Amino acid sequence: MKPKRIHNFNAGPAALPQSVLEEIQENFLDFNGSGMSITEVSHRSKWFDDVINDAITRVKRLLKLDDRYHVLFMQGGASLQFCMLPMNFLHGGRTADYVNTGTWSTKAIKEAQIQGKTIQVVASSEDRNFAYIPKDIQFTAGAAYAHITSNNTIKGTQWADFPETGGIPLIADMSSDIFSRPFDINPFGLLYAGAQKNMGPAGVCLVVVRDDMLALVPDDLPTMLKYTTYSNKNSMFNTPPCFAIYTVQLVLKWLEETIGGLDKMAALNRQKADMLYGLIDRSEFYNGTADPDSRSLMNVTFRLPNESLEQQFVAQAIEHDMGGLKGHRSVGGCRASIYNPTPLSGVEALVDFMRTFEQQNG
Amino acid sequence: MKPKRIHNFNAGPAALPQSVLEEIQENFLDFNGSGMSITEVSHRSKWFDDVINDAITRVKRLLKLDDRYHVLFMQGGASLQFCMLPMNFLHGGRTADYVNTGTWSTKAIKEAQIQGKTIQVVASSEDRNFAYIPKDIQFTAGAAYAHITSNNTIKGTQWADFPETGGIPLIADMSSDIFSRPFDINPFGLLYAGAQKNMGPAGVCLVVVRDDMLALVPDDLPTMLKYTTYSNKNSMFNTPPCFAIYTVQLVLKWLEETIGGLDKMAALNRQKADMLYGLIDRSEFYNGTADPDSRSLMNVTFRLPNESLEQQFVAQAIEHDMGGLKGHRSVGGCRASIYNPTPLSGVEALVDFMRTFEQQNG
Repeated sequence: MKPKRIHNFNAGPAALPQSVLEEIQENFLDFNGSGMSITEVSHRSKWFDDVINDAITRVKRLLKLDDRYHVLFMQGGASLQFCMLPMNFLHGGRTADYVNTGTWSTKAIKEAQIQGKTIQVVASSEDRNFAYIPKDIQFTAGAAYAHITSNNTIKGTQWADFPETGGIPLIADMSSDIFSRPFDINPFGLLYAGAQKNMGPAGVCLVVVRDDMLALVPDDLPTMLKYTTYSNKNSMFNTPPCFAIYTVQLVLKWLEETIGGLDKMAALNRQKADMLYGLIDRSEFYNGTADPDSRSLMNVTFRLPNESLEQQFVAQAIEHDMGGLKGHRSVGGCRASIYNPTPLSGVEALVDFMRTFEQQNG
Repeated sequence: MKPKRIHNFNAGPAALPQSVLEEIQENFLDFNGSGMSITEVSHRSKWFDDVINDAITRVKRLLKLDDRYHVLFMQGGASLQFCMLPMNFLHGGRTADYVNTGTWSTKAIKEAQIQGKTIQVVASSEDRNFAYIPKDIQFTAGAAYAHITSNNTIKGTQWADFPETGGIPLIADMSSDIFSRPFDINPFGLLYAGAQKNMGPAGVCLVVVRDDMLALVPDDLPTMLKYTTYSNKNSMFNTPPCFAIYTVQLVLKWLEETIGGLDKMAALNRQKADMLYGLIDRSEFYNGTADPDSRSLMNVTFRLPNESLEQQFVAQAIEHDMGGLKGHRSVGGCRASIYNPTPLSGVEALVDFMRTFEQQNG
């Protein structure tokens, strides 16, 4: 029997490419002729080495990383990174700059402050409920790093271009737009991304870190909280989250071999987002919540004329096999998350539904 | 086509019940009629709530936990617990006792020392290469906790009975024997277990913690490193490792509903271990490495007359579809890990193979 599949607009965990899910399913009891499930093979085996090394090679190729950059797989999500960054890099009176563009930036800032580290919030869009990305930011000379959230899932904003930091290493939480478009890696000292939006299941966090940042890591940190522990041991100081890394590997393979790389992915993502924003801009019924020049191509946030209609919209969408359209519990409204794996056909179905709903309720 | 399946004696990640793997496979594209994979459903959905709450209920029932105990699912494996324990519980001059029974205990001790915490190693079996479990230990009055490793995967030893601590809360790393036998929870302030041996895939760590331990957690720790963050948010302050928790839930269901609970599991584990130790004890060819009264029922470690024969043994075993029998890279020799999911038939096959190998090479 063919499995039921819905159009999944969840913000994370989110849709994965169906071909990836089918490959996992098919091989789940016997991974690559091992006679074991991928959940049962040793992380010290050739089988798993092939998985993690292929994933690393694909990350390096997709992001055009040179030898200064190291690809790590960690646990604890972006939330653990929030505390590890100041722990690893803010020593000997060094401070860091943070840009506050919403919930996730705010959490990152808080975790530095909890540790008593000195940081500067050099720009914020809190004055207008985080509806935009700040411009013309003055960074602090000598800061150890400048931290941004590249895409803001809850407020539906995204950095169209990364800020000019004057040589200060950029650090970005890219959990919700990693691999969605090409960008120049050179300004980045580190980037990190929980997998569960654009590249895999929950339970693994990708970190890309540059040599000069690793050189700042002090010796006396707990082993599991030092970036060097992961860079020295190919992310296998202890047992890594094997299944999650395997799924990431397959998603990256799909991105390279089925989609055709980041340029093609970016064009497709632009096309998907334009369809939704185009409808919103032509409508008096739907209202986008982010400033047009700050709009996210990943999370399209919008309001309807009132909350009652929003509830009807979400409920009727579910009846039409479209899930995950309710806005984040902290802001309300509606949100369509259209990460890399969301196919064009899913967005087309959503646009059709939105048009019909407007005709019937507008 | 029926998938190839081998007898899997890996030390971890390790064998899982085949019925659990088949259930995951069957539902992988459509979890419980959601139209989404378990890797795609939101952790804030009813679908996932049912998974995590059922897993918690089963842990409480299996370990006979009363309301003082909280069941948490975390990331980072036992290795992250090694540093979290002293971070959360050793404040205001409090110290802790540690018993050193091998590699994992040694790592736990090291992570307390890295943080500059005062701990006492009150007993150690290092004098005889960790071949036994220490007896008649004097614990330190006023210690915040006493830490043990309940089963030692590398050296093949296991605490047959837990030590009497005189009221000091016991903390145990139970990564390799959780749910393998019933025990009295009352002396325990906390126990933890990476899932990838007895209860699931790599990528999730079970923590059971008592109220009086949670009361010791200071406010000013990083959010992701405080036990209270997990106890206050049902392990969902941030996105949990959903797939790994789902697999644990299914393994616990199998343990309760197919095996019949911890008493039956313990009897089966005893039967499996007795078959192997019986053969070893009757043989001049195979030599157990652990003292008989300290033997592990989970990891049966043994040597052959020389290293060349050990290599042949491991290689021929693989030809007979038996994997994972090589000892840990730090000690050599051979090891059969026979955790809960290893069926009796697997151990029978191994015993047959060992007899034949001895006849041909003894």
